[in-house]
Amino acid sequence: MSAGAAPVDFYFEFSSPYGYIASRIVDDFGKRVGRPVNWRPMLLGPVFKLTGQPPLIEIPMKGEYSKMDFSRSARLHKVPYKHPDKFPIGTVAALRAFYWIHDRDPVQAREAAKALYAAYFAEGRDISAPAAVVEITKSVGVDGAALAAALEDPAVKERAKREVDAAIAAGVFGSPFFVADGEPFWGVDRLPMLEDWIRTGGW
Amino acid sequence: MSAGAAPVDFYFEFSSPYGYIASRIVDDFGKRVGRPVNWRPMLLGPVFKLTGQPPLIEIPMKGEYSKMDFSRSARLHKVPYKHPDKFPIGTVAALRAFYWIHDRDPVQAREAAKALYAAYFAEGRDISAPAAVVEITKSVGVDGAALAAALEDPAVKERAKREVDAAIAAGVFGSPFFVADGEPFWGVDRLPMLEDWIRTGGW
Repeated sequence: MSAGAAPVDFYFEFSSPYGYIASRIVDDFGKRVGRPVNWRPMLLGPVFKLTGQPPLIEIPMKGEYSKMDFSRSARLHKVPYKHPDKFPIGTVAALRAFYWIHDRDPVQAREAAKALYAAYFAEGRDISAPAAVVEITKSVGVDGAALAAALEDPAVKERAKREVDAAIAAGVFGSPFFVADGEPFWGVDRLPMLEDWIRTGGW
Repeated sequence: MSAGAAPVDFYFEFSSPYGYIASRIVDDFGKRVGRPVNWRPMLLGPVFKLTGQPPLIEIPMKGEYSKMDFSRSARLHKVPYKHPDKFPIGTVAALRAFYWIHDRDPVQAREAAKALYAAYFAEGRDISAPAAVVEITKSVGVDGAALAAALEDPAVKERAKREVDAAIAAGVFGSPFFVADGEPFWGVDRLPMLEDWIRTGGW
């Protein structure tokens, strides 16, 4: 990719199937369009409060369709997917862990995010508890004892909260959500549109 | 297209920008994949009652994004678009007119639908009143006096209502919504996915 190319912001929630699918294809996407990708986990809970929306899965008709479409979209993108028994889940521990790791090692943070997503959506593990997050991120080399302590640290909690606030301020209301050169794109199914936008300079 | 190829059901609501955009590209889509397309207008109002959802435009954050995305998606598909001053509108008159025309001349019904969509989304005309629907469909050869009378006919109202009920029974909760070989696809941005599904036989 070209030096100094403007990054694409990739917002996602750890409990989002479409965010998970995006996480498996977004790095190749970035390489293809010559842009670095900023991984920016956030929480949909506060968004749903602002928008008055229930979780997708709870909406009549749309919820049924979505459950079918999670698996179908995963098959389309050749991503392993096993719909979790417990869904959706709270992901504040995963969120806090991500930014704590990120401030120390951005590459490791991305690996940790991939491990957390795989645990939840491919291996059927509940990643809501801090202990689960600590255990799973050990597999990518994170210091478990230090992370466990960090997850109780008010400064770490505040750091993560600021990211959620920033995402909402940027207009992020779903997952995944991409912003490139100030232009927002919602949904993994909009990556082709974003690709065309970047290649052509917009239309 | 091959003789006897199973049709793709194309559900849409006359007040839906994405339905309008789909209406401008769906016939080419059908030719490309070798399937006839059944145009099936419906109403989102009864769906919103069932799903507890407000119209898209009224949802905080998502509404702002959508308004921007209507125009952007139209530009992507090279479809003329002028966001209507009054939006959304009631489209029961357009719905009833469509099915009344359809029962007499399916080709003319499709032309009438295109004229109604163009009037609302390209020419800035309010198509909610029966008189407007009668006036606009005259341009494609519909007998205005006969249609005006039909729009008051309880049997015509019932005919249209049955179509809305059938759409809901088929799981249609948005516009546009496509069903091919029993497989549902929601959104104009899912046409590439539907195309791949038809070409490959599903995945």
